[in-house]
Amino acid sequence: MPTTRIENDSMGPIEVPADRYWGAQTQRSVEHFPIGTDRFRWTRPMVRALGILKQAAARANAELGELPANLAQAIDAAAQGVIDGTLDDHFPLVVFQTGSGTQSNMNANEVIANRAIEQLGGELGSKTPVHPNDHVNRGQSSNDTFPTAMHIAVVEQLQERLLPAVRTLNATLQQRAQAFDDIVKTGRTHLQDATPITLGQEIGSWVAQIDQALAGVERSLGGLYALAIGGTAVGTGLNAHPRFGETCAAHIARITGQPFHAAENKFAALSAHDALVDCSASLRTLAGALFKMANDVRWLASGPRCGIGELRIPENEPGSSIMPGKVNPTQCEALTMVCAQVFGNDAAVAFAGTQGNFQLNVYKPVMVHNVLESIALLADASLAFERYCAAGIEPDRARIAANMERNLMLVTALNPHIGYDAAAKIAKHALAQGSTLREAALELDLVTPEQFDAWMDPMAMARPHQAR
Amino acid sequence: MPTTRIENDSMGPIEVPADRYWGAQTQRSVEHFPIGTDRFRWTRPMVRALGILKQAAARANAELGELPANLAQAIDAAAQGVIDGTLDDHFPLVVFQTGSGTQSNMNANEVIANRAIEQLGGELGSKTPVHPNDHVNRGQSSNDTFPTAMHIAVVEQLQERLLPAVRTLNATLQQRAQAFDDIVKTGRTHLQDATPITLGQEIGSWVAQIDQALAGVERSLGGLYALAIGGTAVGTGLNAHPRFGETCAAHIARITGQPFHAAENKFAALSAHDALVDCSASLRTLAGALFKMANDVRWLASGPRCGIGELRIPENEPGSSIMPGKVNPTQCEALTMVCAQVFGNDAAVAFAGTQGNFQLNVYKPVMVHNVLESIALLADASLAFERYCAAGIEPDRARIAANMERNLMLVTALNPHIGYDAAAKIAKHALAQGSTLREAALELDLVTPEQFDAWMDPMAMARPHQAR
Amino acid sequence: MPTTRIENDSMGPIEVPADRYWGAQTQRSVEHFPIGTDRFRWTRPMVRALGILKQAAARANAELGELPANLAQAIDAAAQGVIDGTLDDHFPLVVFQTGSGTQSNMNANEVIANRAIEQLGGELGSKTPVHPNDHVNRGQSSNDTFPTAMHIAVVEQLQERLLPAVRTLNATLQQRAQAFDDIVKTGRTHLQDATPITLGQEIGSWVAQIDQALAGVERSLGGLYALAIGGTAVGTGLNAHPRFGETCAAHIARITGQPFHAAENKFAALSAHDALVDCSASLRTLAGALFKMANDVRWLASGPRCGIGELRIPENEPGSSIMPGKVNPTQCEALTMVCAQVFGNDAAVAFAGTQGNFQLNVYKPVMVHNVLESIALLADASLAFERYCAAGIEPDRARIAANMERNLMLVTALNPHIGYDAAAKIAKHALAQGSTLREAALELDLVTPEQFDAWMDPMAMARPHQAR
Amino acid sequence: MPTTRIENDSMGPIEVPADRYWGAQTQRSVEHFPIGTDRFRWTRPMVRALGILKQAAARANAELGELPANLAQAIDAAAQGVIDGTLDDHFPLVVFQTGSGTQSNMNANEVIANRAIEQLGGELGSKTPVHPNDHVNRGQSSNDTFPTAMHIAVVEQLQERLLPAVRTLNATLQQRAQAFDDIVKTGRTHLQDATPITLGQEIGSWVAQIDQALAGVERSLGGLYALAIGGTAVGTGLNAHPRFGETCAAHIARITGQPFHAAENKFAALSAHDALVDCSASLRTLAGALFKMANDVRWLASGPRCGIGELRIPENEPGSSIMPGKVNPTQCEALTMVCAQVFGNDAAVAFAGTQGNFQLNVYKPVMVHNVLESIALLADASLAFERYCAAGIEPDRARIAANMERNLMLVTALNPHIGYDAAAKIAKHALAQGSTLREAALELDLVTPEQFDAWMDPMAMARPHQAR
Repeated sequence: MPTTRIENDSMGPIEVPADRYWGAQTQRSVEHFPIGTDRFRWTRPMVRALGILKQAAARANAELGELPANLAQAIDAAAQGVIDGTLDDHFPLVVFQTGSGTQSNMNANEVIANRAIEQLGGELGSKTPVHPNDHVNRGQSSNDTFPTAMHIAVVEQLQERLLPAVRTLNATLQQRAQAFDDIVKTGRTHLQDATPITLGQEIGSWVAQIDQALAGVERSLGGLYALAIGGTAVGTGLNAHPRFGETCAAHIARITGQPFHAAENKFAALSAHDALVDCSASLRTLAGALFKMANDVRWLASGPRCGIGELRIPENEPGSSIMPGKVNPTQCEALTMVCAQVFGNDAAVAFAGTQGNFQLNVYKPVMVHNVLESIALLADASLAFERYCAAGIEPDRARIAANMERNLMLVTALNPHIGYDAAAKIAKHALAQGSTLREAALELDLVTPEQFDAWMDPMAMARPHQAR
Repeated sequence: MPTTRIENDSMGPIEVPADRYWGAQTQRSVEHFPIGTDRFRWTRPMVRALGILKQAAARANAELGELPANLAQAIDAAAQGVIDGTLDDHFPLVVFQTGSGTQSNMNANEVIANRAIEQLGGELGSKTPVHPNDHVNRGQSSNDTFPTAMHIAVVEQLQERLLPAVRTLNATLQQRAQAFDDIVKTGRTHLQDATPITLGQEIGSWVAQIDQALAGVERSLGGLYALAIGGTAVGTGLNAHPRFGETCAAHIARITGQPFHAAENKFAALSAHDALVDCSASLRTLAGALFKMANDVRWLASGPRCGIGELRIPENEPGSSIMPGKVNPTQCEALTMVCAQVFGNDAAVAFAGTQGNFQLNVYKPVMVHNVLESIALLADASLAFERYCAAGIEPDRARIAANMERNLMLVTALNPHIGYDAAAKIAKHALAQGSTLREAALELDLVTPEQFDAWMDPMAMARPHQAR
Repeated sequence: MPTTRIENDSMGPIEVPADRYWGAQTQRSVEHFPIGTDRFRWTRPMVRALGILKQAAARANAELGELPANLAQAIDAAAQGVIDGTLDDHFPLVVFQTGSGTQSNMNANEVIANRAIEQLGGELGSKTPVHPNDHVNRGQSSNDTFPTAMHIAVVEQLQERLLPAVRTLNATLQQRAQAFDDIVKTGRTHLQDATPITLGQEIGSWVAQIDQALAGVERSLGGLYALAIGGTAVGTGLNAHPRFGETCAAHIARITGQPFHAAENKFAALSAHDALVDCSASLRTLAGALFKMANDVRWLASGPRCGIGELRIPENEPGSSIMPGKVNPTQCEALTMVCAQVFGNDAAVAFAGTQGNFQLNVYKPVMVHNVLESIALLADASLAFERYCAAGIEPDRARIAANMERNLMLVTALNPHIGYDAAAKIAKHALAQGSTLREAALELDLVTPEQFDAWMDPMAMARPHQAR
Repeated sequence: MPTTRIENDSMGPIEVPADRYWGAQTQRSVEHFPIGTDRFRWTRPMVRALGILKQAAARANAELGELPANLAQAIDAAAQGVIDGTLDDHFPLVVFQTGSGTQSNMNANEVIANRAIEQLGGELGSKTPVHPNDHVNRGQSSNDTFPTAMHIAVVEQLQERLLPAVRTLNATLQQRAQAFDDIVKTGRTHLQDATPITLGQEIGSWVAQIDQALAGVERSLGGLYALAIGGTAVGTGLNAHPRFGETCAAHIARITGQPFHAAENKFAALSAHDALVDCSASLRTLAGALFKMANDVRWLASGPRCGIGELRIPENEPGSSIMPGKVNPTQCEALTMVCAQVFGNDAAVAFAGTQGNFQLNVYKPVMVHNVLESIALLADASLAFERYCAAGIEPDRARIAANMERNLMLVTALNPHIGYDAAAKIAKHALAQGSTLREAALELDLVTPEQFDAWMDPMAMARPHQAR
């Protein structure tokens, strides 16, 4: 059996592997773009999204009378294989190809066409009875299909991967916040001791920040639901049925269960990808919130003896190849490194997003690649952090209490009674003398012992409005 | 008359200029932070915002019985001066100070206290009858006032400066789009000739992208309306009346006419400024949209003879000190440089936003500074661009028509009739022969002259769905 | 045969796959860091570098009397397998793990120890006679070994992959510059027609910029040659022989053929990775130079008929799934997308580089990952661009000549003779009248025909100093 | 006396203020670019650099016989005023203008011409006997003069402002390192307790990192010494004397005392500004080193009672408007905010650096503006930090000793004697029991008391190689 067959495109014949469905244009891309082949082949989300798009397009074309039913059905069935992942071996292309993603669009067209041809008993490469351009790509251009697939892939990954993962993490943090709501501890501003809070409030602050960031990610979905499909080559919709865009988008919505619709201005949908830039920005904010949380965790768990040491976190691995018994906040480190990567990915997306010209932005592949990578890494790292760190966070109550007792900023409770200036004198005196606030206050004769004891209640300071 | 007087704070006495209202803490900051003093003093928006905040706080405290009416009124009146700008000379501090903005909060407290003292016949620096901390700062901490002022300043600048400016520009572009809607021209993808569009569609694409970006800026207002006020030092609201936050926010809303309200989670509102990060991201997207538009303008106007040359833009200045008669797209250049600055400012904001610890993010001043700078620059540059470039954009109809005629991608109109592969043959033949599509099509005997003329209608290609 | 065996570390026993050499700590990392497992496993360069380091360490310890010769030889041989890549299946860990790279250092220690144990007839997991910490990691800590391996990997990839690839590209460009040195053409500034240059000068400018950027990359090698080895846990060199660092570095230099040496200040070498940040910055500059070149190429090749069209580049693939016969500058697009990725990677590296605390920066893995990725992508894309684009660049002489003839900025040649103001009059008159410069000049009576023809020599303008 | 006079350029007449030397082109820029006028007017360094350039050009032209001596002398004298700053009121333009800086080059030409005309008894605006283009700009174009001035300004500010400031800071840190070299303390990796170091080593690590970063800044001078001058409009040197570039550069070198020379490839010098991008990158690295140092300082000084508390830093200002007696690490905060700004500025520079086209990069003004701003801020903040923080750093010896004593990682000293695994048992036992290492070691019977006391010497661990 021959190991190759001949496929043709407008540039002529070319050999392709006999056991692959792809055609001439995919093959040319394989040969011309040997760039990052070990790590930058398109992964499941984009291949699946291309399959969804092609299936929806076939259904729309059939519905609109643009494709015979038998061809549409054959395309539909072949596209299902692309969706399901059974044809992943037939998608060899990498991110760094043509900037419109044309070659990946053609890869999908070619694979689906040949697969459909095979099912219909035709000859691979014959383009008969199913032509990759005239049938599979009917009413489409790479310029509208690829950005449509980008949005499908990103929405699915946000909805099915990122949001659930981070919500899982945040639920665990919320549960920790509630569990420790009775623990009053030293607040810290400027890294310096400040007035008391509860550990529940401290952890709850992370929860609130992450929740807000998740809301931002969800807001970014709005722009992503608008699809370029129907714009074809330059946004005018040339060669597509007038209702192709909306019909295809409706099918995509049906297949994915997501409220996709055709974008209002197709010209803008091809020449800019600001919905992706905004999505990336929302991931940046989310990464910032996770970064702050993870940093707080590791600082609060610093020590075990010469740091702050108010939290204990799970000991998962030996921390050092030289220091015996050392345990490190490794989940914090993995998560914050992921955040650094997300910051970098966002920079790439934002840069690429500025570089459109006229009717096309030709940085489509690198943009969607980075957004998908950020989503995957944030999801994975959130789940690992949840399981191997957040779920096991415990307070060191003794340490917390000892710190609380020594905290000079409790003096703030005296402000309303003796004024800021007198209170400052007490705090400074205590620090200079190494004494307690009570000792200093009495020594300076600024309050009576009874007053001091009545006014100085850390938990009341942490919950002043419940206390009143 | 002595040129200085003595002011005191918890660190002791210090000389301040006799003709200034500021007190000891402002003076210490002046002395300790000689950083960028020529360019980084706080500008109007932040000083005004601090005035608004202090006025609202005085009103809230009076309403809640936390301040005697006469003191509240004196503070209110003094704050009005801060709002109006008559006291700007009393705000000498720079951005690069303490990261909580404490010194600028105290600057406001001190100036208002002394101004109120003066009005009430007291002695400057006496803190009687109006104390900067106990009265002006009543129920407040820098940690909640400064971020509150940040939000006030940014919202006001967005609403009053940026949004109107960009809308003005976009209205002019929209008017140009309508004026030129009948001009059919070469579309361009990958910088290569593509199927036709109208000039109205091309300009309309900029309008749509900018509109979407403006919507993103408006969405970012949501987070900015939530104010930290009421959180005091660490988010607990210690030493503030339980209803101080909401009451003060309501007064701020009344004074500004903007729907401000107290943030739900005060801890998060002090320790992170993600609303500013999100706002900065929305400015980044807006800058990206303006950048793409300005680039398209200058490329379309490139030439005058050896470029694309399809647009003519106003000739405002001689373009070269050596090449006589040269005219350059200078407004495009100023605007795109502003965009580059906004991208940099956003990077600073995003970095700073990640660096919070525990109950405080101490990058507040640098964050708000960069957001305000981006707002101001984008607003200024949009107005200049509107007036000195956009309003004067004119098509070079002859050039556009000549380009249209030579454009080989008109062949795409033949796809539905003769298929992609045959159409490709025609285009390639024409390119190789230097002939027209019509000549090539007939020479290859792939269509009849009648068919060609019937199918090949550029305006119908640009508006395929109107044409049907 | 059992599919797992038990390995132990200070945290106790754990099951590992029986057919893998790795031990307990590697296994814990596999389980705790399921983050990006499809794309973020360490690739060859880092695994190889760890092998080189371990081999050099064994040799150094043997030389210094810190390891018995037979153990050192067994370690040496096992490390050779790591170097050669025959043990790659035993390195399962990903980038996002502990921020010191401890787990990858232990992965190397464990694999080498077990492999050596096996060779010496011992039992896997017994740590006898070769212990992963006490022998393979002798005189080392992850804190000095991992950054040492980082530098080895980056230097090797720069020297063997990036520099040759970009030099190959630049040599081809240089050859093109020379081939086209006789072609005088329109220069362009502000995208507007400017005074003439030769095509050789234009391409030579790219060559010069890329050459300068390569020199910057080479300068960054200086910092990378300095190795952290010898610092052990915190920089003091505790538990290492006093001459271990320098001896080990010398062995690394011998194995790699690169002038590595021990860093002067080991504390700084653990707590910061500014040599990597600088290297990343030099890659950013290189990417910027390649980006500018690729942009110039695609703009000069824009058209084919409605753009600048002065260059022709190879037609490698059909450019559009809808527009027949379209050919796009796809290599330019792949290369500029790679540049966008490099800009993002650099942002991640720079961010991570700022986040060290005390004696350690715990963003080591993400830093080296991004630098290695940038190197690989730039190398791959440069070679593809060289082969499939640069080598085939050809001028469109007719188009260049036609543009040259119409270029009004030739008028600059008249400045020295008639002054800037008079020359400007001629250019403006020609533009307004649609006439040639000669016609305008004579019509305005500012020069005689003889003068005009004598002074107006485009090639002399492009090479004024040769011409004199 | 009339308040305006008429000036002319190739676009016609325009009114300018009678008391200003600037001419028509400056005036057009004032009117067309009302962008950031409050903060973005060119500051001293760029105005001075333009003066130096124009003076050097006049001298070079005179030397080469291109300008009559009397005109050259008049230009020279007028340029001296620009250099000295006496004419700063005549430089009204802002950064955001044409991207070549043409208008600022013309501003210098016009001011110098009018000033020289005035000195020679001519009429302002008459361009006689000194013409701004034909004489002051002789042999020049904005395209080569402006980038030349950019390099002059940056080199002068680096040499005279930044490098001395940071060296001053580093000398003080170095002095602190020496003063505290005898203090042995807890090292920290992963924020966790690690083996001992001396405080001198810890501070010395900052010194080393900053020194390396300064060396990087100095390396960046190499590219900055190469000047674009001599390239004129597009790099060919049209209309300049063949030796004008080198001669002018030599005069610039003489005037500034810096080793400036003409760039080898003038085309690249106009179309890219990678020397500035590299300089900005070196400032980024420097900012990263200062950032790490300032963070370490504030963490080590955290507390005063509930943090690490091993350092005491000067108390410069009251830290809180609500918490009496609070003192914050404000110099650290100002410095790290400056670093965040520098990171942002660098992002702007790097972005702008990528956007050159053909023979010109039209982001010149925004690039040099950001580099100069970063230089100024880093210099100012370094000096403030040195004076108000670094000089007053003191150890809290009691706290340091108490931490040292409790540090479990001292167990690492036992590795060479009892092996990693046994040592780990001791550390874990001590942590679990809350006991000392000695107690744990003896309880586990792994060492004798004599052995323990002999092997466990923190200072020997910090200086293992001196100790041997």
